[in-house]
Amino acid sequence: MPAAFLDRLASLIGAQHIVTDAQDMEPYLVERRGLYHGKALAIARPANTAEVAAVVALCHETDTAVVPQGGNTGLVGGQIPDTSGRQLILSLARLREVREVDLASNTMVVEAGMTLAEVQQAAEKAGRLFPLSLASEGSCTIGGNLATNAGGTAVIAYGNTRELVLGVEAVLSDGRVLSSLSKLKKDNTGYDLKDLFVGSEGTLGVITAAVLKLFPRPQSIETAFVGLADPHHALKLLQLAHEEAGNAIHTFELIPRIGIEYVLRHVASARDPLTEPHKWYVLLELTAQRRDGVADTMNAVLEAALEQGIIEDAALAASLDQAKQFWALREDMSEVQRLEGGSIKHDVSVPIASVPDFIDEASAAVLKAVPGGRLVPFGHLGDGNIHFNLSQPVGADKQAFVARWYEINAIVHGVVARYHGSISAEHGIGQLKRDLLPAVKDPTALDVMRAIKKALDPKGIMNPGKVL
Amino acid sequence: MPAAFLDRLASLIGAQHIVTDAQDMEPYLVERRGLYHGKALAIARPANTAEVAAVVALCHETDTAVVPQGGNTGLVGGQIPDTSGRQLILSLARLREVREVDLASNTMVVEAGMTLAEVQQAAEKAGRLFPLSLASEGSCTIGGNLATNAGGTAVIAYGNTRELVLGVEAVLSDGRVLSSLSKLKKDNTGYDLKDLFVGSEGTLGVITAAVLKLFPRPQSIETAFVGLADPHHALKLLQLAHEEAGNAIHTFELIPRIGIEYVLRHVASARDPLTEPHKWYVLLELTAQRRDGVADTMNAVLEAALEQGIIEDAALAASLDQAKQFWALREDMSEVQRLEGGSIKHDVSVPIASVPDFIDEASAAVLKAVPGGRLVPFGHLGDGNIHFNLSQPVGADKQAFVARWYEINAIVHGVVARYHGSISAEHGIGQLKRDLLPAVKDPTALDVMRAIKKALDPKGIMNPGKVL
Repeated sequence: MPAAFLDRLASLIGAQHIVTDAQDMEPYLVERRGLYHGKALAIARPANTAEVAAVVALCHETDTAVVPQGGNTGLVGGQIPDTSGRQLILSLARLREVREVDLASNTMVVEAGMTLAEVQQAAEKAGRLFPLSLASEGSCTIGGNLATNAGGTAVIAYGNTRELVLGVEAVLSDGRVLSSLSKLKKDNTGYDLKDLFVGSEGTLGVITAAVLKLFPRPQSIETAFVGLADPHHALKLLQLAHEEAGNAIHTFELIPRIGIEYVLRHVASARDPLTEPHKWYVLLELTAQRRDGVADTMNAVLEAALEQGIIEDAALAASLDQAKQFWALREDMSEVQRLEGGSIKHDVSVPIASVPDFIDEASAAVLKAVPGGRLVPFGHLGDGNIHFNLSQPVGADKQAFVARWYEINAIVHGVVARYHGSISAEHGIGQLKRDLLPAVKDPTALDVMRAIKKALDPKGIMNPGKVL
Repeated sequence: MPAAFLDRLASLIGAQHIVTDAQDMEPYLVERRGLYHGKALAIARPANTAEVAAVVALCHETDTAVVPQGGNTGLVGGQIPDTSGRQLILSLARLREVREVDLASNTMVVEAGMTLAEVQQAAEKAGRLFPLSLASEGSCTIGGNLATNAGGTAVIAYGNTRELVLGVEAVLSDGRVLSSLSKLKKDNTGYDLKDLFVGSEGTLGVITAAVLKLFPRPQSIETAFVGLADPHHALKLLQLAHEEAGNAIHTFELIPRIGIEYVLRHVASARDPLTEPHKWYVLLELTAQRRDGVADTMNAVLEAALEQGIIEDAALAASLDQAKQFWALREDMSEVQRLEGGSIKHDVSVPIASVPDFIDEASAAVLKAVPGGRLVPFGHLGDGNIHFNLSQPVGADKQAFVARWYEINAIVHGVVARYHGSISAEHGIGQLKRDLLPAVKDPTALDVMRAIKKALDPKGIMNPGKVL
């Protein structure tokens, strides 16, 4: 069967676009951190939607499982096949066209295989902003962003990927093409299929293209690095900023002192952002269209916050360079944790009002289990989404520490559950969290998900073993 | 069976909460404009989610069709039963609790039977804004708004109902309760069920409660009434406003001169908004948090628009009273059309960039079919959503004119199709447009909708005959 299958596959997309050599397959089979390592029948690299549809139809006919893959940057193993060697990886990497830019409608139709950075650049070239922004934007693809409903640092202002897309084109499990590439801002003609496919992690079909929303590029940006006592004060600052600046808030990121220390230790060009060290920091960015609109607002926010004792100090970026330095302190956070030894990670969210209490409680619980553990909770306070990470105690055995991954997960997720939070705020479920889902999800919701999965993929060939 | 069914129903919710008297049932059976008039087994008025669940479970067991109803203000007959007399109307009117207001998270949990105005007032009482706003807000319910994904005048700034809700609670066709009352801004743990139920018009289940997003109340509001030559210039003004004011645009409504004339004729208190008449008008409103933020911006927009010859004149509301007068001109549009005789209506959308061409083309096509017809296209240009309405020629026979409803629909929807638009931008499908759907919708999308309907409502008891 494999040989016949591969022959038929070759007749559909050309033999040169099928990878079967073990060494050439390897980059598609391993997840970046090495957590997952699968095997595959082959890697199919179709050129366009019609070829994707033909490949999936062949898989449907032959009961072959399909694992869609974009930039292979996912953090939950959703893009990695199992170890049976019987699953086909469907790479979207060759679907790279900008099909249309419509400046008057502020929309852009792009294919799934473009990297996020390429999408951002295409928008910039058109004088517009596509606001989705994440650490892996140079290699992750927009198709993967859509499949996982990616988050990032501009969610507070623009929403998750779901909110940035007006329509999708997707290949269904039987190879039919669902064409909902609508540019309409309002269309109440039936069920919201677009949002069902966004975030379904390839288990309901393969997204091949999407209509993205474009935004005017902000003409005015103010970036501040703020020092404060704790997350409780950071929440107060957020509330003050909401009142004063409303939807001008573009970024509100929480960073603990230890994160700054990690960066200062490992990044030669990094500078301490304020004259004195503070226990916690917030990276606050306001943007607006009008050139004169946002400096006054930023000053008003910071002055009121100082006056009310909410913050201890603040530095306003005086130049684009200084703003970049502030951002680098935030963006280097993930990388430097790796350099500090083992790290046990959580991508969780709780209601915004509960973030400070959650951090207090989860910190106490984790330190009880791991005395000397170094807590590095940071991230998108403005969205209630904290990357609650734990670095190994200084000098501890990395292997032994990381072996406690699931034990520590259970502790943190237990606190998350008490605050009615989510165990996956922005990374998805994939393989990593699939077995955790039944414990945290409404059983009726899980039943409805299973019913939808069965209705749209009765043979169960679309990314099996992921999510459900 | 009916007697036994009603006895069991009474044991679940109390006999006093079941309406069976013909005269008492009447208000539930007739759609406001008299387009639809159904019959019903009874009206059930449960008190809370548990009772709704019990009623639906009974209907599931007895194969009784359920027609959920909120404020009975829907414009496509979705809330009206068929004429068999065998369907049960499930009124949500007694589910009226504000379950929670969370100021720090900017969320509010409300039950489905609250009117939209009551929801707005609850938000205002908490010092917040719930921005959904429509003509029928005094009587429509938030449950109906959710079921139909209602639009309104603030969509350009805040999105449709779908974008204003974080989580829902819904009773499924077998009486189980799907509880997704999440307050989380980010939660990637499985399929997006919330958005599937929102806009499904009661065909997949009954929404009983929702978590709504709250926003800070704008501290600064500038309202302008602008006179200009045609929709092409209105689109240019929109683009200019986007560039200058970005997300400060709260309202951008297009109104033709004839609409103003209708209002001047029928509303005693109305005044012509500008010194000279203009062929077209735009009601433009900018809002911002900062007190000093938005007047300069509005002036900059209007000055640039005058200078570039985009607009002919503009009046800025000097007081709250004047702003209210401007708004009344827009809000009276629907009512005054009724007073001008027969009216054939369309709730359509096209890509924003295509609105002017669409209006030109549809106008020419309709006037060819109805010489002397009075075109009143107005509405949400900023969302691409135009209420493309046609008043009967002066002195024509109303009955004969309205009898051409479907013929004129076909002409307008034909133009909509050429612009890849929607035949229902914000009112939904219901009964009115169900049979139009197959002609305008991707057949694969319709198949997927049917598969989902069958998966979630295998007995077909949830609002049968609507949408699909």
